[in-house]
Amino acid sequence: MAATDNLTAILYKKEDLRLEEKPIPEIQDDEVLIKMACVGICGSDVHYLVHGRIADFVVDSPMIIGHEASGTVVKAGKDVSHLKKGDRVAIEPGVSCRKCRICKEGRYNLCADMRFCATPPYDGNLRRYYAHAADFCYKIPDSVSFEEAALIEPLSVGMHACRRGKLQIGDSVLITGAGPIGLVTLICAKAMGASRVIVTDLLDFKLDVAKELGADHTILVKPNEDEKEVTKKIQEILEGSLPDITIDCSGFESTIKLGLQATRNGGTLVLVGMGAQEVKLPLLAAMCREVDIKGVFRYANDYPVVLSMISSGKLNLKRLITHKFKLEETLEAFDIARTGKGNPIKVMIYCDKNVKP
Amino acid sequence: MAATDNLTAILYKKEDLRLEEKPIPEIQDDEVLIKMACVGICGSDVHYLVHGRIADFVVDSPMIIGHEASGTVVKAGKDVSHLKKGDRVAIEPGVSCRKCRICKEGRYNLCADMRFCATPPYDGNLRRYYAHAADFCYKIPDSVSFEEAALIEPLSVGMHACRRGKLQIGDSVLITGAGPIGLVTLICAKAMGASRVIVTDLLDFKLDVAKELGADHTILVKPNEDEKEVTKKIQEILEGSLPDITIDCSGFESTIKLGLQATRNGGTLVLVGMGAQEVKLPLLAAMCREVDIKGVFRYANDYPVVLSMISSGKLNLKRLITHKFKLEETLEAFDIARTGKGNPIKVMIYCDKNVKP
Amino acid sequence: MAATDNLTAILYKKEDLRLEEKPIPEIQDDEVLIKMACVGICGSDVHYLVHGRIADFVVDSPMIIGHEASGTVVKAGKDVSHLKKGDRVAIEPGVSCRKCRICKEGRYNLCADMRFCATPPYDGNLRRYYAHAADFCYKIPDSVSFEEAALIEPLSVGMHACRRGKLQIGDSVLITGAGPIGLVTLICAKAMGASRVIVTDLLDFKLDVAKELGADHTILVKPNEDEKEVTKKIQEILEGSLPDITIDCSGFESTIKLGLQATRNGGTLVLVGMGAQEVKLPLLAAMCREVDIKGVFRYANDYPVVLSMISSGKLNLKRLITHKFKLEETLEAFDIARTGKGNPIKVMIYCDKNVKP
Amino acid sequence: MAATDNLTAILYKKEDLRLEEKPIPEIQDDEVLIKMACVGICGSDVHYLVHGRIADFVVDSPMIIGHEASGTVVKAGKDVSHLKKGDRVAIEPGVSCRKCRICKEGRYNLCADMRFCATPPYDGNLRRYYAHAADFCYKIPDSVSFEEAALIEPLSVGMHACRRGKLQIGDSVLITGAGPIGLVTLICAKAMGASRVIVTDLLDFKLDVAKELGADHTILVKPNEDEKEVTKKIQEILEGSLPDITIDCSGFESTIKLGLQATRNGGTLVLVGMGAQEVKLPLLAAMCREVDIKGVFRYANDYPVVLSMISSGKLNLKRLITHKFKLEETLEAFDIARTGKGNPIKVMIYCDKNVKP
Repeated sequence: MAATDNLTAILYKKEDLRLEEKPIPEIQDDEVLIKMACVGICGSDVHYLVHGRIADFVVDSPMIIGHEASGTVVKAGKDVSHLKKGDRVAIEPGVSCRKCRICKEGRYNLCADMRFCATPPYDGNLRRYYAHAADFCYKIPDSVSFEEAALIEPLSVGMHACRRGKLQIGDSVLITGAGPIGLVTLICAKAMGASRVIVTDLLDFKLDVAKELGADHTILVKPNEDEKEVTKKIQEILEGSLPDITIDCSGFESTIKLGLQATRNGGTLVLVGMGAQEVKLPLLAAMCREVDIKGVFRYANDYPVVLSMISSGKLNLKRLITHKFKLEETLEAFDIARTGKGNPIKVMIYCDKNVKP
Repeated sequence: MAATDNLTAILYKKEDLRLEEKPIPEIQDDEVLIKMACVGICGSDVHYLVHGRIADFVVDSPMIIGHEASGTVVKAGKDVSHLKKGDRVAIEPGVSCRKCRICKEGRYNLCADMRFCATPPYDGNLRRYYAHAADFCYKIPDSVSFEEAALIEPLSVGMHACRRGKLQIGDSVLITGAGPIGLVTLICAKAMGASRVIVTDLLDFKLDVAKELGADHTILVKPNEDEKEVTKKIQEILEGSLPDITIDCSGFESTIKLGLQATRNGGTLVLVGMGAQEVKLPLLAAMCREVDIKGVFRYANDYPVVLSMISSGKLNLKRLITHKFKLEETLEAFDIARTGKGNPIKVMIYCDKNVKP
Repeated sequence: MAATDNLTAILYKKEDLRLEEKPIPEIQDDEVLIKMACVGICGSDVHYLVHGRIADFVVDSPMIIGHEASGTVVKAGKDVSHLKKGDRVAIEPGVSCRKCRICKEGRYNLCADMRFCATPPYDGNLRRYYAHAADFCYKIPDSVSFEEAALIEPLSVGMHACRRGKLQIGDSVLITGAGPIGLVTLICAKAMGASRVIVTDLLDFKLDVAKELGADHTILVKPNEDEKEVTKKIQEILEGSLPDITIDCSGFESTIKLGLQATRNGGTLVLVGMGAQEVKLPLLAAMCREVDIKGVFRYANDYPVVLSMISSGKLNLKRLITHKFKLEETLEAFDIARTGKGNPIKVMIYCDKNVKP
Repeated sequence: MAATDNLTAILYKKEDLRLEEKPIPEIQDDEVLIKMACVGICGSDVHYLVHGRIADFVVDSPMIIGHEASGTVVKAGKDVSHLKKGDRVAIEPGVSCRKCRICKEGRYNLCADMRFCATPPYDGNLRRYYAHAADFCYKIPDSVSFEEAALIEPLSVGMHACRRGKLQIGDSVLITGAGPIGLVTLICAKAMGASRVIVTDLLDFKLDVAKELGADHTILVKPNEDEKEVTKKIQEILEGSLPDITIDCSGFESTIKLGLQATRNGGTLVLVGMGAQEVKLPLLAAMCREVDIKGVFRYANDYPVVLSMISSGKLNLKRLITHKFKLEETLEAFDIARTGKGNPIKVMIYCDKNVKP
C-alpha cells in the first residue's frame, strides 16, 4: 500500500461530504492499523450531513464520517497482545478513558472523555485505512462475515436497551417504531427470550419487516391516534395484560406517552429514540404504578455479547442489509439513506477496492 | 369494653369530619382486634378532608380516616399464631390480596386488589378499636413506643424511596423538599450510609429542621429560581460532582426538572412527591446521561426494616412529633394539620382514653 | 362422577405403592376441584418409593404420590375469580403460606409453612380428582397440551436454576449431568440466549439426547476422570475461556469440584443436583476468583414464565416424554422409572380414563 | 532530595527483611511520584515474611514490602490531570490492565494482569519515595489524616465484603472473627445500616474491641464448640431469627460450617478469611435453603466509597491503630505484628523522617 492510498469520506460541513485521499495513519503502541472492510450508514451520520450537528455536537471543522465498521488488522502496536496481522475484527467506535470512576465501575459509555468515531471533534472510519485502540477491536471468527461484524454496532444499541430494561425470559415487550433501531431491538428481545413482542409503527411496510424478523404482533398506528386506543389494542393482544417492558425506538412525545400508559405496574419504559428536547408527559400516573423510565446512551460491554450471539448463529441479520455500495460510491449511498428511496433499512459501504459488494 | 364504646373519626364528605360512636368490629379468623394507641395525621388525610378526593379516589360515602397507626392486640383470630392478646403492634395499613402474580413476586404495593386504610372505599383506623389482618401487624418490643410505631408508616415511604433508588453507602443525595416526607427520607438516607445529604426547600424553618435531623447541607431555593442556578450551588457543595441520587419530595415541575439536571450521569431520580398530572420536562438530556427515573408508590416489605432500625436505636424520631391530641380532639388536630399553625411536622392523635398525650 | 370414583396412587411405605379408590375431596372457598389429566413421575417420587424418605422427609404414614400435574377444573370455590369450570390448568404443587416475611418478599419457595404435593406429610395428586389452591393453578391456552402443562413443573426447576445463576444472553454455560433436570436446564438456558451450552455426562446416550435438545457441545466424562482434565477440554471448546455459569445437575462431589474449577473468574456455580450431605471442596481457590455458589430449592414465580414460553412456541418438549401409562398402570410406570429400562427421560401417567395415552 | 535517598524495606526471602537505600524511581507519563507518609502492616505482609509465600505467590526474588499506604505527590506525569504536586493521596495498591473484559465490566479486582503492591513479583511501597499509577491515587481532603488514608485499604476489604453480601439497611449480620478484617467489616456493616451485628471470636480481648467499635452482641466461642450450639446462641440473641448475612473473617472449616448453618433461608455467606485449600462442608442443607456463598478477593471501586465515609466523619478509625513506628524501625514493627505482643490491631509505619509517629 502506498502511504497515501487512503480514500476517505470527509464531512466538511453541512451538505458538504467529499471523498479525498489522505495519508495512512500512524499507530500508537496500543493501537492496530485496520484495512477497512464494511461500514454501515447510521441515522446519526445522515443527521450530521443534513443538519451539520446533533444537539450540542457541531461539525465546525472537517470530520471523517462512519462508525459501524469492520476490517482486517494490517499492523499491531507493540503493546498489543490479543490481535495480530491478518485478524478480522469488529470495531467498537467509542474509546473511553478507562481511568475515571465511571469507566472503572463498568459504565464506560458515560465516560466524560469518550472519543467516539464521527462525533465531533473525533474522526470516523469510512476510509481505506484506520487506526483504533486495540482493546476496542474484537476478533471475529471465520463464521462471521464483515457485514455482520459491522452490524454489531447498531445491534449493541438494541442489546443495551434490552439489558437496561432488564428484559427477562418470558417477558412481553412493546417496541414503538420499526426503523433500524426498532428492528435490532426486536432481534435482541427475541434472542433474550421475550415471549411476545408487539411492534408499532406508522408505516405498514416497516411492520412487514418487523414480522419477518420475528415480531409476534404488529400494530399500525394512525397519526394522532389516542394513546388510550393503542393501549387497548395492546391489552387485547395480551389477553388483558400489559407489556412488561416498553422500548421506545421513536422518540416522539406520543410514543413516550404510550409507553408510560401501556407498560404494566412495576414494568420499565426504556427510551432509545431521540426526539424533542422537551416533552409534556402524564408522569404522575406512571410513577404511582412504579413504571421505571430508563434512557439509553449507546452501549457498554455489549459488543462481546452480540458477537457471541452472531457467532453461535442465533441472530439472522441478512434481512437488515438492503443496499450495498463501494467506498467510491459513498455519496450515492448517503443519497439512498437520506431520501429513503427503495425503503432502505441498512445501507452498507465496502471499503476494500478488491471486494465487490 | 361495651360493644359500642368505639369513638370513631368519620369523614362524611369534603369538609365534613365527625366523631361518632360505632360498634366494635368482629374479627375474621386471620385478623386481630386492636385497641388503638397512636394515629398520626398524614397529608393525604388532610387532602381528603379539604378536597374530598385524591386523583380518582373519591370519598363518595362516609369513610373512617387515619392510617399511620399503632395499638395493642385485645383479641386474635383462631388462625393467628404470631400474635396474642396484649402484644403491642405497628399496623401496616395496606392489605394486599397475597395471591396475584405481583404479590407473589414481592411487590405487593402494586397489587390491584389492595385494601388500604382511609383510601376510598376502605375505612381507616382513627378510632378506639379496629380489626386488621394479623400478618400486616408487627409486634413491637418494649423499647419501641406507640408513637414510634405509628411513625413507621411515613418512615416506610422514605425507606421505600431510598431502596427504590438503590441508595448505597457513600452516595451523595439530593432531597428536594423538607416537609414530612422529605424529612423521613433524609433520616433513612443517613441511616443507609449516605455520605452527604443536601436538602432544598422554599422555607427556612423547614431547612432548620432538616439540619437538626442530619442534613449535611441545605439550600434555600427562591420561588422561580432557575434550575441551573440551583444545580451550580449543588455542584459547588459537592466539589464539582453531582449527587448520585435525587429524591424529589415536592412533586413540582421545577423540582423534577432540577432532579433531571442535578443528578449525575448514571444516577437515579426518585419521585415521591405527588404533584400535577402532567409535567413538561427536558427528558432528552437526562436520558442521554442514563439518569433513571423511578416513581414510588407507598412501600412493600419496609415495615420490618424500619422497625428493626428503630428497635436498634438507630433512628431518632422525637423531633418529628410536634403536636399531640386526644381522639376527642380530632377536629382540632386536623385544624393544626391543615392550617400549618405552629409549623407542625407530625400531628399525633392518642386513641386510648386512659393515656394522656 | 360418583363421590368415590377417585382412583388414587398411595405410597403406604417404602416399596409399598398401591392404587385405591378414595372419596373425591371437598374444596375450600379458595380452591378448585380438578379432574386430573397428566402426572409425570419425578426422581423424588421414585426416591420415596425406594427409600421411604428424602433427607428428613420420611413417609411414616400413607401418602398420595405425584406432583408434576395438569388437569381440568370441574368446580371452583366461591372466592375464586380467575378460574371457572372447564378451564384447563397447570398445577404448581407447592402452596406457601403467603403471609410470612419471605413469602411477601417474593421467595415463597423458602416459606417454612410450605405444603408441597407428595412431600411428607402432604398428599400429592396422582389420582382422578384433586383439590388445590386456585392461585397456584394456571389456566393454559388451547395451544398448550396437558402433557406440556405437566412438564412445567420440572422446567420450572431448570428455569429457577438459570434465573438464580443470573444467566444473561451471550453467556457460555456448563451443565453437568444430562438427566431430566440437566435437560430441562439446557432447554431453559438456550431459551434465555445462552450462546454456548456444554453438557457433560457419564453416559453417551444421555449426551445424544442433550445434543438433540440443543446442546452446542457435549463431553463424555470418564468415571474418576480428573476435574482438571475435564476443565482443559471445556477451555479448548471455548477457545481458552471458561464458562460464565456452571449448573450442576448431578450433585456429586466430583461435579461440584468441576464447577468450582471450570467457572470463570466472577462467574456463578448453581447447584441443583442433590447428593451427599457433606462434600470436601477446594473452596479457597474458587472464592479468590469470586465464583459465587448458589443452591436451588424448587422454584418461585417460574410457572408463569415457563407457561408463557411454551404458549409462544419457544420450547419444544416432545422429546422429553419417552413413556406413557394409564393411571391403572401406575406400578408399571414406576417400574420403568426406577429401573431405567428403555432409557426413560420422563414417564407420563394419564389419569382420565377416557383419554388414551 | 538526593536521588538515592530512598530508604526501602525489602523482603529478600523468608525471614530476611532488610532496610536499604534505593534510587528514587522515575515516573511514567500517567504516574505520580509519592513521598510516602503512612504504611500499615497487613497480615499478608507478615505471612510473606514468615512463610516466603502465600498459595502460589512465592517470593523467589527480593520484593519491596507494604501496600496499605498514603503519601504526598511530589511530581506528576505529563498525562496526569487530576493530581498535582502537594496533593495528599490514598494509594490503592492494585493496578489493573483497564483493558480486558472484566476490567471494562467493573470488576477489575479479578483482572488477570493485576499488578498488586507486595504480591510477587510486584514491589510494594514501604519506602521513602514511590511511583504509582495516578488513576489509582485518590486525593484526600485536609480533614482526613495520613493514618486514616492508609486504613482505606483494609476498610475497602470490609466494604467489598459487605457490598458483595448485598448488606441492606436493617439486616442482622454475623461476623466470625474479630481480627483486623473482622473489625473493619464490623465498622462497614454498621455504617451501611446493619441493625444488629454479632461478632464471634475465640479470644475475649478481641471481642472487647469489637464491642468498642459498635458490635451489638459478641459470642466467645470455645475451641471445638459445636456449630449447632453457637447457632442456638445466635438464634437466642435474634429472638428466634437467624442472621441475614454471615461474613466469615476467620477462614476456618468450623467458621464456614457455622456460616452455612447460622445464615437464614435465602441469606448470604460471604467468605473473606483465607484458610485451608480444602474444606469438608455440609453443603446440601445450605443449598436447599438457598444460602448463597460468595468469596471476596480484595476490592474494586471501594476506595472512593470508604474515603467519602471517612471524609464525612462517619467512620471512627482511631481505635484500630495500636502501634506506631518509624520506617527505620520496620523490623521492630514486624516483630510486634508477627508475635502479637501487646495485642496489636494495626501497626502503622511512618515513612517521612520529618514526621514523628
